[in-house]
Amino acid sequence: MTVHESAYVDRDARVDDTITVGEGTKIWQFATVLQGTVLGKDCNVGACAVLTGAVFGDRCKISSGVVMGPGFQIGNDVFIGPNVVLANDLYPFTDKSYFDEEALRSGEKWCVIIEDGVGIGANTVILPGTRVRRGALVAAGSVCSGVVAENRIYRRSGTATIRESAALEKRMRYVRTDYSTAEGS
Amino acid sequence: MTVHESAYVDRDARVDDTITVGEGTKIWQFATVLQGTVLGKDCNVGACAVLTGAVFGDRCKISSGVVMGPGFQIGNDVFIGPNVVLANDLYPFTDKSYFDEEALRSGEKWCVIIEDGVGIGANTVILPGTRVRRGALVAAGSVCSGVVAENRIYRRSGTATIRESAALEKRMRYVRTDYSTAEGS
Amino acid sequence: MTVHESAYVDRDARVDDTITVGEGTKIWQFATVLQGTVLGKDCNVGACAVLTGAVFGDRCKISSGVVMGPGFQIGNDVFIGPNVVLANDLYPFTDKSYFDEEALRSGEKWCVIIEDGVGIGANTVILPGTRVRRGALVAAGSVCSGVVAENRIYRRSGTATIRESAALEKRMRYVRTDYSTAEGS
Repeated sequence: MTVHESAYVDRDARVDDTITVGEGTKIWQFATVLQGTVLGKDCNVGACAVLTGAVFGDRCKISSGVVMGPGFQIGNDVFIGPNVVLANDLYPFTDKSYFDEEALRSGEKWCVIIEDGVGIGANTVILPGTRVRRGALVAAGSVCSGVVAENRIYRRSGTATIRESAALEKRMRYVRTDYSTAEGS
Repeated sequence: MTVHESAYVDRDARVDDTITVGEGTKIWQFATVLQGTVLGKDCNVGACAVLTGAVFGDRCKISSGVVMGPGFQIGNDVFIGPNVVLANDLYPFTDKSYFDEEALRSGEKWCVIIEDGVGIGANTVILPGTRVRRGALVAAGSVCSGVVAENRIYRRSGTATIRESAALEKRMRYVRTDYSTAEGS
Repeated sequence: MTVHESAYVDRDARVDDTITVGEGTKIWQFATVLQGTVLGKDCNVGACAVLTGAVFGDRCKISSGVVMGPGFQIGNDVFIGPNVVLANDLYPFTDKSYFDEEALRSGEKWCVIIEDGVGIGANTVILPGTRVRRGALVAAGSVCSGVVAENRIYRRSGTATIRESAALEKRMRYVRTDYSTAEGS
């Protein structure tokens, strides 16, 4: 285990001696980080996340409830929302006779590549074979496959839109309260 | 921390001294309740739920795996199904320069308001700006936004239906077994 | 509690004395297995799974983050992907006056039956009344109801396709890297 001295591993997290944890990275309570997982600098692993072999760059935010096995290469500054799953098996049966875990653990092959600066919305599933290019956004609740082009948004129902995420109005969205009394909240 | 003496906080739950927990409320194993979260009376927080700032009324049921940060106002008698996520950021990148966490933590603004008696089905995502009015039901697996009218059902794919939830036939749904032998279960 | 001597129950799992755990079955950290849950031989219960009354056959793989209450009969060799929820209440409000938990706990009725050899993709919800027949696959991110025929695939948006899962090309899916330099990964 190579855990940088400035990293934080909660007393109620489960880790093993095969992982790499960079400077300033935090692993919170009830999180699991095992089996060769690599976390760069200043990453954050939320409560109840389960990581068993993915490779992350720096400044990634892995939210609570994320599940990721081996076969995933994640760039820098990637946000992975709550309860997101990255899948390495398109036909998830208990029969794994065709499944080449060694190819995934050795880094010879990748099931999913997420490039720098990507955002993945909550409860999304990323299927094997997917590449999400720089700055793209995968909307919440999606089942995502194929190649998502740079700075684009991928929405659920399998279609990629042409709206550029660089043009998004990044602002807070609040509940309107001006009409609430009239309608009797 | 204001935890009512009749509340139950499991020895394997993670809480801090900023939260409020009402009479009879239960927080179960591997749950996380931090950063000013308010739970009213007789609420139930399931295993592995992660609450970091939401405000709940009384008799709410927060199921296992629910993830909710700050910015959420939840009424009384609200059911939140397993693995539901309430989101406070429509463009979830690691860049949070525009994100006004203080407005959410102070209660000045709300990203989502869920009124009394609402039900939220499993694995749903509620996007910021959403208001779900009394007695409405958000169906399982939805990505929900906008305003859901009183006693209506919101289904996935973004459309609200007109069927009134008050008219729902609330009964158990079982698997039919009368044909199973014939078809060779 | 009937836990076979060869079973593994992690020191950080939560179990009680009402469950049955077969030979060689493993229950991992931060998992919850309570209230009469039955696990056959050589099953695997992932981190943060929450099982409170389902009945499983042998060699089932219950992934991380799965949530299942009572009312579910699961066959042998069933794969249940990460963050999958099986639901026993179609109208999940806090009012449970019509809800017959006793019928579910006694095994008199079942809300969902999953037959042998089925695979359930990540983040799927199985609604009450559903039967998934042998060898069928429920695709990731689905909300599944009704009867899924043997060896078929059920995809999201509620429609069952006719492609037979037995004919699926079960092979690894990797990210193509041959074009990555040209496009500037």
